[in-house]
Amino acid sequence: MTFSSKLIEKAVEAFASLPGIGRKTALRLVLHLLKQDKTVTEQFASTLAAMRAGVQDCRVCHNLSDEDVCQICADARRDRSLVCVVENIRDLMAIEDTGQYRGLYHVLGGIISPIEGIGPGDLNIDSLVERVRQGDLTEVIMAISPSIEGETTVYYLSKKLQPAGVLLSAIARGVAFGGDLEYADELTLGRSIVARTRYTNA
Amino acid sequence: MTFSSKLIEKAVEAFASLPGIGRKTALRLVLHLLKQDKTVTEQFASTLAAMRAGVQDCRVCHNLSDEDVCQICADARRDRSLVCVVENIRDLMAIEDTGQYRGLYHVLGGIISPIEGIGPGDLNIDSLVERVRQGDLTEVIMAISPSIEGETTVYYLSKKLQPAGVLLSAIARGVAFGGDLEYADELTLGRSIVARTRYTNA
Repeated sequence: MTFSSKLIEKAVEAFASLPGIGRKTALRLVLHLLKQDKTVTEQFASTLAAMRAGVQDCRVCHNLSDEDVCQICADARRDRSLVCVVENIRDLMAIEDTGQYRGLYHVLGGIISPIEGIGPGDLNIDSLVERVRQGDLTEVIMAISPSIEGETTVYYLSKKLQPAGVLLSAIARGVAFGGDLEYADELTLGRSIVARTRYTNA
Repeated sequence: MTFSSKLIEKAVEAFASLPGIGRKTALRLVLHLLKQDKTVTEQFASTLAAMRAGVQDCRVCHNLSDEDVCQICADARRDRSLVCVVENIRDLMAIEDTGQYRGLYHVLGGIISPIEGIGPGDLNIDSLVERVRQGDLTEVIMAISPSIEGETTVYYLSKKLQPAGVLLSAIARGVAFGGDLEYADELTLGRSIVARTRYTNA
């Protein structure tokens, strides 16, 4: 790509440094911004700068937050006896999107993965143990991906949390709604039979 | 998408307002920036702001430029007797990328399109006529897309420029290198036979 403007070249490089954005797409975005009013780019830049400067870890659950304590932890209408342990903020958002959960969260910030060099000490586990020890919680729900690393993490957490006498649970695994039985993998289908639930007409 | 941070929500909306970027991709980009050092986002924001504030139309050829006159127009080593007329900056960059052209450019800023309400008055045509009138140019090369609107634009330009007695040319149409004859469209293949060039062994 031959640029006759250093400013455009730098802006294209900036966009292209983001994941999944190549130089052609980056150029398209820059030319789009140049076609819009100057205030559009000013606003875009200041929105990003304000976001990066203002967003912090929630002191309680490590959710991303605008304040010291996040909106969810600060919400008095939520069930403070339940905490759902998730790997990252994206999983938290996915659960929030279901509208089915009104408890609190705890964001681990990853899962234990010896291959990637992530040990328990790199995750927000101590603060979870501390929350459970403080005794307001009655149940800890593990909403961790069912991979080997995920299962390892859940096992590690269970060992750490069991002494506190809190109820531990895990989200249900099974055949997805709309999923065809014949295309479900054996592990999932097997698990869905073993962990079958009572049929109700309600 | 349920956000527990207004700052993140606004940043996601800002990215999602760009063409071709959906909300899921926008969230991925925002979370990426949050994982990097704060200076990365600061730099990104200031690069974009500086770009939008600094980039202007070249006074001579309407190329995007950091200065009053663009690098190409200001380059004394370029052939000042040739001007290549292009629809937009992307076409200009494509020609520059070939490394085969050392003349100047003129960016129209679009093509005549009655359907989209773009008439000759909306394009940088008067300034091209003025450049040709000043008399330093010996040839004007039309590098315009071979669509109906493109042909209309070329016809209009030729009517405007012919009185000045300048040589008008158009880029060659034909079968692309690596292109299979049997898959070339009839118009292109027909044109490539009519406008055949002498074979040389050199």
